[in-house]
Amino acid sequence: MSLAMRTFSSFIFDLDGVLYLGSTPIRGAAEALCELGRRNCRIFFLTNNATKTRGQYRKKLAAMGIDAKKKHIYTSAYGTAKYLVQEKIRKVFVVGEAGLKREIRGAGVRICTGEEADAVVVGLDRKFDYKKLAHAASAIRNGALFIATNTDATLPLENGFAPGAGAMVEAAATASGKRPEVIIGKPQTFLIEDILDENDFQKREVAFVGDRLDTDMLASNKLGIFSFCVLTGSTDKHSASRARGLYKPGKIIKSVEEVLKYAKEATD
Amino acid sequence: MSLAMRTFSSFIFDLDGVLYLGSTPIRGAAEALCELGRRNCRIFFLTNNATKTRGQYRKKLAAMGIDAKKKHIYTSAYGTAKYLVQEKIRKVFVVGEAGLKREIRGAGVRICTGEEADAVVVGLDRKFDYKKLAHAASAIRNGALFIATNTDATLPLENGFAPGAGAMVEAAATASGKRPEVIIGKPQTFLIEDILDENDFQKREVAFVGDRLDTDMLASNKLGIFSFCVLTGSTDKHSASRARGLYKPGKIIKSVEEVLKYAKEATD
Repeated sequence: MSLAMRTFSSFIFDLDGVLYLGSTPIRGAAEALCELGRRNCRIFFLTNNATKTRGQYRKKLAAMGIDAKKKHIYTSAYGTAKYLVQEKIRKVFVVGEAGLKREIRGAGVRICTGEEADAVVVGLDRKFDYKKLAHAASAIRNGALFIATNTDATLPLENGFAPGAGAMVEAAATASGKRPEVIIGKPQTFLIEDILDENDFQKREVAFVGDRLDTDMLASNKLGIFSFCVLTGSTDKHSASRARGLYKPGKIIKSVEEVLKYAKEATD
Repeated sequence: MSLAMRTFSSFIFDLDGVLYLGSTPIRGAAEALCELGRRNCRIFFLTNNATKTRGQYRKKLAAMGIDAKKKHIYTSAYGTAKYLVQEKIRKVFVVGEAGLKREIRGAGVRICTGEEADAVVVGLDRKFDYKKLAHAASAIRNGALFIATNTDATLPLENGFAPGAGAMVEAAATASGKRPEVIIGKPQTFLIEDILDENDFQKREVAFVGDRLDTDMLASNKLGIFSFCVLTGSTDKHSASRARGLYKPGKIIKSVEEVLKYAKEATD
């Protein structure tokens, strides 16, 4: 079936670069999501960012006029907490911010100093310092499982880029001599599979809307889920058109508003 | 000529793992160096560590009974300062400790905030934090030359390892999206060549004494200088024997004391 005739009943939206940039909403995003809701499409939110809890994201989206239920928001912090529980890991040393720590503690996992840790979780930490790096590297060297919330090199802001979780992960990998054994965020498929499993989605009814070739498109293509690449974030038209293989978008669209063309019609 | 018949009149010693570990001297090191001096051998000291000035190293060595002239001590901090002067770089942002900053300022180069920097120098900084990382990455992204004092992954201590300059360099490389354009320390040959040039050495009269295959042996072999690998530092006998190609030591010796066998006889 050609894309022109294809519609989707469920959408997973990446956040940064798709619905907003930093704290600036993308024009038309709230209206588009509202219209999707009116057509009874199911809407999910997915971000690699591990610095906020799901509750904090709900508030951030609400302030932009987007109504999101907490249970429809998937973050790499939430995914990490879930992974720790699933693997029965009880004590972790965390390089990360308050949101990540709250998700982990909320799942019943203890946050400890490096020495007794069964795992080391490394995410974006804007209070990252040499001491935390030394503790993380030493615990990993002593056998703790090395988990990265994500490996994004940068954090896109309105006026440029700040270092992302990937910079902290590379510092820990270099100092410990080991690569991360588990990565929760995209381009790994853990979080998207989690959405599919928890909500009994068929792959063919769902589309992913993202802005990055090396995370969003790659993860979608690995899973065989249709992907839209918007041009409001990290990727320009030229790069998006030239992408090949698993990096190639299903469809390049200007912005999130255009997904309406591919959503089912209003049912009421 | 077989090694048994070969003697050297000049020796370059790596410091950490060869003459001491942390602040503990290697047994017999001071005596061996004293004997080399008695035989009128020329002795140089070379370290990738950029946290101390040459004056501070002179004092550290003196406290261990090793008499070193400041002008015979080459560090990656000194090498970096020299490189900046040579390339006429006037303003740098520095991720590094007081010793590095003093060498740079001492050479007449200005240390500035990231925004106006012509170059970013990244070395070991035990007060490294997210803010410094963000400034370094942003300056590199804006076109400043990316210089690493060295890329050692770890700093060997008496009781294990601490993160080395390489961890900071990888964090900056990830966050900026650029690899370092200049690396001063071993396995690059800048510092050793500097010793050869400044002192008019012939390559065949000088031997390098180090403990690491991937820095000391590699740098010596790249230059075609004879190398001794001691087993008092990072490398054990098994790894040293198995090394091949440019990583292969000229001769494996137990400790620095054994170089006396390959030094010229006392001339007095």
